[in-house]
Amino acid sequence: MSDPFAVARQEVATANRILANEGVLDAFGHISMRHPEKPDRYLIARYGAAEIMRADDILELTLDSKPVEPTSARLFSELVIHGCIYQARPDVNSVCHHHAVSVLPFCITGVELVPVMHLGATLGAKVPFWDSRDEFGDTPLVVTTPDQGRSHARALGNHWMVLLRRHGATLAGRSLRECVFRSIYTCRNAELQSRAMGIGSISTLSPGEAALCSEHSLTPRTLGRAWEYWTYRLRKMEAMTTGLDAQPATTKMRPAAPRRKPSVKRAAAVRPAGRARKAKRVKKR
Amino acid sequence: MSDPFAVARQEVATANRILANEGVLDAFGHISMRHPEKPDRYLIARYGAAEIMRADDILELTLDSKPVEPTSARLFSELVIHGCIYQARPDVNSVCHHHAVSVLPFCITGVELVPVMHLGATLGAKVPFWDSRDEFGDTPLVVTTPDQGRSHARALGNHWMVLLRRHGATLAGRSLRECVFRSIYTCRNAELQSRAMGIGSISTLSPGEAALCSEHSLTPRTLGRAWEYWTYRLRKMEAMTTGLDAQPATTKMRPAAPRRKPSVKRAAAVRPAGRARKAKRVKKR
Amino acid sequence: MSDPFAVARQEVATANRILANEGVLDAFGHISMRHPEKPDRYLIARYGAAEIMRADDILELTLDSKPVEPTSARLFSELVIHGCIYQARPDVNSVCHHHAVSVLPFCITGVELVPVMHLGATLGAKVPFWDSRDEFGDTPLVVTTPDQGRSHARALGNHWMVLLRRHGATLAGRSLRECVFRSIYTCRNAELQSRAMGIGSISTLSPGEAALCSEHSLTPRTLGRAWEYWTYRLRKMEAMTTGLDAQPATTKMRPAAPRRKPSVKRAAAVRPAGRARKAKRVKKR
Amino acid sequence: MSDPFAVARQEVATANRILANEGVLDAFGHISMRHPEKPDRYLIARYGAAEIMRADDILELTLDSKPVEPTSARLFSELVIHGCIYQARPDVNSVCHHHAVSVLPFCITGVELVPVMHLGATLGAKVPFWDSRDEFGDTPLVVTTPDQGRSHARALGNHWMVLLRRHGATLAGRSLRECVFRSIYTCRNAELQSRAMGIGSISTLSPGEAALCSEHSLTPRTLGRAWEYWTYRLRKMEAMTTGLDAQPATTKMRPAAPRRKPSVKRAAAVRPAGRARKAKRVKKR
Repeated sequence: MSDPFAVARQEVATANRILANEGVLDAFGHISMRHPEKPDRYLIARYGAAEIMRADDILELTLDSKPVEPTSARLFSELVIHGCIYQARPDVNSVCHHHAVSVLPFCITGVELVPVMHLGATLGAKVPFWDSRDEFGDTPLVVTTPDQGRSHARALGNHWMVLLRRHGATLAGRSLRECVFRSIYTCRNAELQSRAMGIGSISTLSPGEAALCSEHSLTPRTLGRAWEYWTYRLRKMEAMTTGLDAQPATTKMRPAAPRRKPSVKRAAAVRPAGRARKAKRVKKR
Repeated sequence: MSDPFAVARQEVATANRILANEGVLDAFGHISMRHPEKPDRYLIARYGAAEIMRADDILELTLDSKPVEPTSARLFSELVIHGCIYQARPDVNSVCHHHAVSVLPFCITGVELVPVMHLGATLGAKVPFWDSRDEFGDTPLVVTTPDQGRSHARALGNHWMVLLRRHGATLAGRSLRECVFRSIYTCRNAELQSRAMGIGSISTLSPGEAALCSEHSLTPRTLGRAWEYWTYRLRKMEAMTTGLDAQPATTKMRPAAPRRKPSVKRAAAVRPAGRARKAKRVKKR
Repeated sequence: MSDPFAVARQEVATANRILANEGVLDAFGHISMRHPEKPDRYLIARYGAAEIMRADDILELTLDSKPVEPTSARLFSELVIHGCIYQARPDVNSVCHHHAVSVLPFCITGVELVPVMHLGATLGAKVPFWDSRDEFGDTPLVVTTPDQGRSHARALGNHWMVLLRRHGATLAGRSLRECVFRSIYTCRNAELQSRAMGIGSISTLSPGEAALCSEHSLTPRTLGRAWEYWTYRLRKMEAMTTGLDAQPATTKMRPAAPRRKPSVKRAAAVRPAGRARKAKRVKKR
Repeated sequence: MSDPFAVARQEVATANRILANEGVLDAFGHISMRHPEKPDRYLIARYGAAEIMRADDILELTLDSKPVEPTSARLFSELVIHGCIYQARPDVNSVCHHHAVSVLPFCITGVELVPVMHLGATLGAKVPFWDSRDEFGDTPLVVTTPDQGRSHARALGNHWMVLLRRHGATLAGRSLRECVFRSIYTCRNAELQSRAMGIGSISTLSPGEAALCSEHSLTPRTLGRAWEYWTYRLRKMEAMTTGLDAQPATTKMRPAAPRRKPSVKRAAAVRPAGRARKAKRVKKR
């Protein structure tokens, strides 16, 4: 698989499933990646839950969040979160938006999220807040218009994470793996900060420590170790469900798939849950 | 499966197992659905835990909570929770009653459950309390008589969720999927509200935000995405236990169900875990 | 399997694995049952973790906690917990001792455990404390001598649950299933009480409610439903690990079990984890 | 497998995976063991997550943390944590360093970790703190230089556990199994202490109780029971993922393992997860 675009789609799909498997994404939330060769494009899943995404569920969009090729696939309504950050931040090559249980209490209370352990220092020097109410009044709390997308990107500024009041969090990374790492370990940091606040007064990393810790965590060596681990865990989870046809039984919008032939059934055991056939069906949408 | 009644039984059984798989129901609690064609009937599982329910465990009852056809199956003692709401609320087509860990602290303390994030706004404008002690004095805290059922339905009023002091919660929906969505995301909201109260002062959605958020979450598009996700997770979990006869070994109350015919045995791979025939297949391997 | 003793051993083994699967027991803790035909005997597992126990790990002991038949198996050091309660309480037919995470905070703080929801009312009218330090001074906090066992049984008195300061909990039941139910739902009650204390002031069941709720929960009908559920969950978990020989690889205290013959090895795939014999029993049901 | 070095590598690998399976180690953290025959050497995994380690991932190092044989494997940057403790403490034969969620709140707040239940008394008479900032100022909070390693070992002193401010914990044991036991049950103690602080005032074990409890927990009998349990749970987890090649797909540092031959493929169903080679090793036992 030497085609960078094909590799990138595979990586984005894997990142979706890793973040689902590690509890960051659930039915909602998404992660994207700037196109590896065309910086004015980005890759993101079609509308749906991260846990079910495969390489051919990954679409190519312009930075105005329009599909490069016509598609019948449904798109996320919050694509501007991604497109507007890529427009404003040439140094950003990946964006994640989520509503994880560990981070939401900070969005609900306005308590500042601060680095309390070395891996959590990847949250950056500061995590600003964005309140859609300030500029847009009462909304459904989803970021859907270009104006909202730009306002949200301005709130992120030159930081790496922004908290959306009463809604969720958005994170950026210089690479997909950096963004995945930051997403997972800022959730961990948030969990620890909450727990620590329950037993005493927290002490945070000094600014110098935070900068050094973040740099140390985001080297290719450390990112690679964590990626290897999350990929292994994902493959273990998927190996448990080898017999599973990825097509939900209750979905009625698509015709029943032809059954797998006996001759290929052993091969299924060594593949992650999923299969090419499934992905083909998705294309038809 | 074009018979609406058969489809509905299947859906109710799936909803039971989804709510078990997502941690809302355990040995206790139930979800029902108004009959798709006969509004004076509703469908609910026979007595037992939600996690084990299949389509043929789903019974048809009148709104007085009497079985339409004679049955030897045991019935839940709290059927009036469902029947009385269907009688009082023609707009309600599904009811769920549960005792989830995230919500019970509100039932125990009387702290008001309020919308703290967009998906949680599906709890509605207000979540009233019902205390069986007010009208009925000391009881076993189960809602079993028609009088209790009507009192409980009055407490729900025109809302979508009611908290039962020292007992649990009851939720309604315009459709089964709406009721499942509301059940799961109000548990999430309760969890987040509790955690947020542990680290600071919570800020809630404005009434305008709450109304818009609820409307946005309950569109067919959003409900469908979440349903696809929960169904996929359920099928993954059930695929892990392929060898399992779904009929618990200790159940003695019902005659063995007629087995599905051998001619469809390959299809078993796409069916939820269960049944002897499936185990036979495994034996043959 | 009409032999009451054989049935009882099977039940005790299942209760061990249910309590492990539901998070009440881990490497430590145990559950016992009075002999169904000889009230001066009780059944309990040999020394080891509850999760690994099978019917032939269950031993028969006198109420002085001596094995009825000579055995090379190791015994728990805290057998007097069980024996002394059976001696003092003819109405008790099952005893469980555990160190569950949800209950320990009450043992550590001395905060009283009170019924906060209907299923938790099975904890009884009062949950007394026992502090080994009062009578025995500094000990390893294990209940090993007859004197300690009798003191501990006195602390239980005519109640159904006693909390051991800085150690754990002991529960009794009129039947094995009642004891399992009480063990699981008092853990749930403890978890809920802790969480509720984190967000407000708790209100408890009235004494009248508590008595009625406890009675309602402990009917054969309710116990049966919960037992069916826990058994089903246990069988699901065990179906996931079909290939696993239940005998841990590192156990050296018992002679190596004869290996399954190659001719039956395929059958293993459809059995719950465990030996061939066990699967045969299940088939016979 | 009578070669003590081979046995030791197997044990260290198992300890790695047990601590991952029990939630102590994740992508980060490590456990080591002094060489069973050469006290001036120790064994530790190559760089990577504990969950993926097998016997041949275990390397032999001098107490200066240099590999005994040239290797192309990457090494942990924090090896001095291990080497410096082995140099300073001849009674220590195993060291674990982790960042578990239950313990970190103590590292973040400086609240003292104290024994609140019998199994937690294995934390020793006192758990001192080490703050890298005191001696080394702003660092990336990783212990990488010999100076830092010696300072950290001095902070441990003659204790069994030390908390690293804003970073994690390091534990020692007289044997590998003691170190695993202490690592798991001090996490449990920390979890319980945090929860107990949330509902009331904690009472701790008396110094006499703590000493007796620790001694009682660390007998070969108790250590063996717990090790049997954790090994069983690990094997269950690994049996769920039988189809999985243990080599993560994204790892590029080692040549691809030869695939299992078709002729042995059925056998895979009864082996714990892992490579063919690993299963052979197990067979040889």
